Amino acid sequence: MAEFKFRHSIQVRYSDIDAQKHVNNTRYSTYIESARLAYLQHLKLWDGKSFLNLGITVADVHISYRKPIYLGQTVIVATRISRLGNKSLQFEYKVQDAENAEICATAETINVAYDFHTEQSIAIPEEWRIVISAYEGFD
Amino acid sequence: MAEFKFRHSIQVRYSDIDAQKHVNNTRYSTYIESARLAYLQHLKLWDGKSFLNLGITVADVHISYRKPIYLGQTVIVATRISRLGNKSLQFEYKVQDAENAEICATAETINVAYDFHTEQSIAIPEEWRIVISAYEGFD
Amino acid sequence: MAEFKFRHSIQVRYSDIDAQKHVNNTRYSTYIESARLAYLQHLKLWDGKSFLNLGITVADVHISYRKPIYLGQTVIVATRISRLGNKSLQFEYKVQDAENAEICATAETINVAYDFHTEQSIAIPEEWRIVISAYEGFD
Amino acid sequence: MAEFKFRHSIQVRYSDIDAQKHVNNTRYSTYIESARLAYLQHLKLWDGKSFLNLGITVADVHISYRKPIYLGQTVIVATRISRLGNKSLQFEYKVQDAENAEICATAETINVAYDFHTEQSIAIPEEWRIVISAYEGFD
Repeated sequence: MAEFKFRHSIQVRYSDIDAQKHVNNTRYSTYIESARLAYLQHLKLWDGKSFLNLGITVADVHISYRKPIYLGQTVIVATRISRLGNKSLQFEYKVQDAENAEICATAETINVAYDFHTEQSIAIPEEWRIVISAYEGFD
Repeated sequence: MAEFKFRHSIQVRYSDIDAQKHVNNTRYSTYIESARLAYLQHLKLWDGKSFLNLGITVADVHISYRKPIYLGQTVIVATRISRLGNKSLQFEYKVQDAENAEICATAETINVAYDFHTEQSIAIPEEWRIVISAYEGFD
Repeated sequence: MAEFKFRHSIQVRYSDIDAQKHVNNTRYSTYIESARLAYLQHLKLWDGKSFLNLGITVADVHISYRKPIYLGQTVIVATRISRLGNKSLQFEYKVQDAENAEICATAETINVAYDFHTEQSIAIPEEWRIVISAYEGFD
Repeated sequence: MAEFKFRHSIQVRYSDIDAQKHVNNTRYSTYIESARLAYLQHLKLWDGKSFLNLGITVADVHISYRKPIYLGQTVIVATRISRLGNKSLQFEYKVQDAENAEICATAETINVAYDFHTEQSIAIPEEWRIVISAYEGFD
């Protein structure tokens, strides 16, 4: 688990820029959300269409801001799952400038396995556990 | 002026999707805004950084919705200036599926030449007139 | 149908402000969307919860911008249905400063009656026709 | 400093709702941002207009989600400054249902004193220190 295997690219939009002329702090959570869902699709744990089958919900978000992001930049969100619990898992993210790899922000989220059909938290499905462990190199 | 020379690509984000499970109608205006600014940068009429030098403001937006856009789609916004007045110009847009070119929406905006330093509308600068006319093939 | 009977109040948020330091043009469509849904709830045509029962989709949006809106302003969106067709209806909106009633924008949308369960456009239900005609004073 | 003295009310908008039919997790950061700026305006530390004089930037955001928020709810963001450092301060927030006071989320942000004119972090101005200490009851 030494490194990030998955990277997701994000175009900055003019509508991400606020009155301070840089990307608004709240958009970073949108960027990592896009990266998280792309990660699940990459591992074929979600099809990108059936929102009732999304499988996880957000319990906790922490973002640490390092450098401002400006219009015209493309950012890469390096994404990994760093911990698998019984009912929850932790994602880690690095938001980096696509050109020079400078870190603009780091973030972690805790996501809870969730059945949107019954609106209840559930244990992480065994299939998820196998696929994620294989991808991230967990024992 | 028969055709669109400029095309801008947009990644759909999860945060663009609303409770109806397709891209929210209000995000289309964000997509065409991104395309409009990319067009100005492509013609070197704006540097993408100096917001006081942006040069135009939005007077009128019209969007006609044809087909829903879903998560996972990439869209292309074909963009052109179709009319140059004294103080205003008109943009036209086609929002198309990047894969099959199906039209998801058409749109037009009227933009007014504007000096954000003095906060006043102005005549379209001669430089803009020359550059745009050459690019779009106006007489 | 001489006047607007329904008014919906909107708080401007910092996240509505763009790099030009006023409310971004694309947020106006968010404001009129909120007003449109509040109108439907006020007439008890939608419960605000069952998104598959929302009953209409957006076919066409036109917004004409008159004055910028700034942080700290509250705006009122005066809203009415101005025309009832077989499968579509037209909304009209005035976005006004809550304090001095100055008009910041006018807008119209065409909305199509839609069954989100079957994903098909439908005729406007007779119940809607009766309720809207009574409220707006149509013959 | 036992309690929250400042409360800011937020209307949920349809555009805050995502495909999971509740307020998207990223909007909570928008809500606390609005509350933070309203707090500064309440203490007359910012005029709500001069964005170069805003005085702080965001270094760190942590949000813990407790209950989903739905369309139709109004939320209250209880807001306080809980710690004043030399160059940074910490805000704490409780996002609560306006009707029954149930806690939907708790959050903290670390904000750095910042001069947007020179684009540099600065020491917290003495005026801020006096006003905030008096309001929050710091020694």
